[in-house]
Parts: sequence; C-alpha cells; structure tokens
Amino acid sequence: MNNKSLVHFLQVLSLVLFFVVGTQDSVEGRLISTISKKPHPNDAAAYARWLVSQNYWGVLNTISSDLGGAPFGNVVSFSDGLPNEGSGVPYFYLTTLDPTARNALRDKRSSLAISEYPLGTCGERDPENPACAKITLTGKLVLVDVSTKEAEFAEHALFTKHPEMMDWPEDHNFQIFKLEIEDIFLINWFGGRKPLTVDQYLHTKM
Amino acid sequence: MNNKSLVHFLQVLSLVLFFVVGTQDSVEGRLISTISKKPHPNDAAAYARWLVSQNYWGVLNTISSDLGGAPFGNVVSFSDGLPNEGSGVPYFYLTTLDPTARNALRDKRSSLAISEYPLGTCGERDPENPACAKITLTGKLVLVDVSTKEAEFAEHALFTKHPEMMDWPEDHNFQIFKLEIEDIFLINWFGGRKPLTVDQYLHTKM
Repeated sequence: MNNKSLVHFLQVLSLVLFFVVGTQDSVEGRLISTISKKPHPNDAAAYARWLVSQNYWGVLNTISSDLGGAPFGNVVSFSDGLPNEGSGVPYFYLTTLDPTARNALRDKRSSLAISEYPLGTCGERDPENPACAKITLTGKLVLVDVSTKEAEFAEHALFTKHPEMMDWPEDHNFQIFKLEIEDIFLINWFGGRKPLTVDQYLHTKM
Repeated sequence: MNNKSLVHFLQVLSLVLFFVVGTQDSVEGRLISTISKKPHPNDAAAYARWLVSQNYWGVLNTISSDLGGAPFGNVVSFSDGLPNEGSGVPYFYLTTLDPTARNALRDKRSSLAISEYPLGTCGERDPENPACAKITLTGKLVLVDVSTKEAEFAEHALFTKHPEMMDWPEDHNFQIFKLEIEDIFLINWFGGRKPLTVDQYLHTKM
C-alpha cells in the first residue's frame, strides 16, 4: 500500500469509526423501565404526545418526483425534545445527499409515521393490532433557520436523543428540518381513528 | 466480597438480566438469536432480501387525496413468506376501514419502508446511521385475487408470521394486498445508496 492509499484508507477508517463507535443505547439498551407510563387511550392528546416523545425513529414520507410522484418513505431518527419534555414538533437532521431532504425542498408535503411497537409496551399484540398504537403526523417538512432559538432547541433535542449525530461528517451538510403538523391520524385502541386536533395535541400538558 | 455483598450483587445482576432479556423478548417479540446471520453489506440483493424476510412490520405509504395529495405513511404488518424462505414480495392484510387501502384503490403509487433497527442487529448504532440498514421498496399497491395460488401463498405467509390475523373481525373485510416493486432504495453501509435492480432482488438465492 503506497502513502496515498494509506491516507485514503485511514480517512475511510476514521469515517467508519465515527459511525460505528456510537455512544447511544441500542434498542436492547433502552430498557422498558425507562419508558414512562403510557396515558389512558381515551386521552388522545396525551397518548399522542407520549408516543412521539418516547420514540427515537420513524418513517418520514415525501413525494418523489424522481419516482413519478410516488410517496417515498425513509427510515429516519427524530426528536421533539427529551422524553417527557417533548414539544410535540418532530425535528430531523437531514442531508441533501439523501432523497428525503431533496424531495422536501421541491415539495413540502410530508408525513411522519411512528409505532408504539418498538417501545415494548404492546405486550403480545401484533404491530397492526389497533391496541398497539400508531400515529401519522401529516404536514409540511421545512428547514429550520439556523439563527433562531428554535434551531438551538431542536439541535439540543436531536443531539441529546441521538448523541452520535454530533460527530456526523461536516461535509455532508446536515441541516435541521421540522414537520409543521396539519393533521393527526392516531389509532390507539379499537373503534377507529381518535378525534384529535393539532391544537389539542400541541397544547396538552405532558 | 463478603456473602452479603455477593447476595446483593447477584440480586442486582438478576434484576438487570430480567430487564435486558425481557426487553429483547418483548420489544421485538422475538430474540436476536432467532434472527439469521445477516449477509455481507456488499451483497446488496441478499442483504435486501434478508432485511425484508426477517422483519415483521414497516411503514406503508400511499397518496392521500383526503389530505391534499400528501404522502400518507401508515404502520402495518407484512410478510413475504417465512423468515429465510421469503419471496421478496411483501404482502399485507388491509381493510378499507383504514385510509391506506382506500388510498391504494384510488392511486396505486406506494412504498414500503423497513428498518434493520428493530431486529436488534445494529449494535450501538443510531437508526439513521447508514451502517444500520434501511430499505424502501417503491411500486404499486394492488389487491391479490383471492382465487389464485398467490393468494394462498400470501395468506400462509401472513398468518404464519402474524397468527392473530386469523382472528381479526370478519366484518372488517380484510383483503390481501401486495406491493409490485419497481424501485429499490437500499442503504446498508457508508457510501450512499446501493445499486440494486428489482430483478437482482427477486432472483437472488436466499
């Protein structure tokens, strides 16, 4: 291996180590005992906020003009604040190297789907069982202006829940996006969609 | 360490083991030991098939005409066959009481997003870390004709992985849908999207 190859190898190795040696708890590391008690299914606003604040990842959907306008889902990490201290608004750390951020900059229509299943609080129920809750927040996926207080809050929310994000490569130009929620689809028991307005969701007490 | 300390140590250890083992079991409903060894990231087709066949749920995305054409993601269960015997084609058990099936009957454009994270094989990595794989299958979401051999295969694939589906209410009129895959977006290591055609994906040896 010559010097140039060696330098290249070390660059790749350091990048790999950045990502592989994370400090975050894995799915097994996140004990059920750290999940706060879930609200009663009848309290739709509190249940929805709990589901969003306890979860670490979901699927963020945008319209893909590259794929004939198909609804393109992408697995992403998010944070609305610390667990039990969430704002209800999901923030993301995205790069335009990835189609989701590129799609959103062309067409803001978006949704975030989250399941209760990975929290481990669904017991023996199937992920599609209505008693294992799921939520879809639909709205606009927009960039957060870096010079604002909101960007500061969002960065803290993201980096606390996803510490390895702090070390993600600078040249990937990660930026903070948020979902401006316009509609909430919550299933958390039998009997179909729970009535829940965005206002009720955002202003409920945690 | 005296006897009292030893007893205390063993008590704490058993408590920790109870939570760690218990969480693995209940979060995923199945232990890591039941997940087959994952293929090398360079074998994109085998890795993609492994990811789809090992997983039990994902987010299925459709176009919501009720929500201004927004990409509507919905948490669903799926099956492409038994683990390690999958066909690569994801099947779903959906009712038109739910918006996803209704959307698909109006506009077939759809995608299914799946993460490696819930399998527990990502170690300490964040769900958005490219070394924790994710896949998005994009295509058309269509009804499977109940009188076909394919419907028989799909029902067996679904009911074996999701036994409670057998008992879901008959008056909900659940039907089998499948995703006719047209594009595959796979991230399973650093360096961006893996080149992978639908043909390579469907015809790889498991």
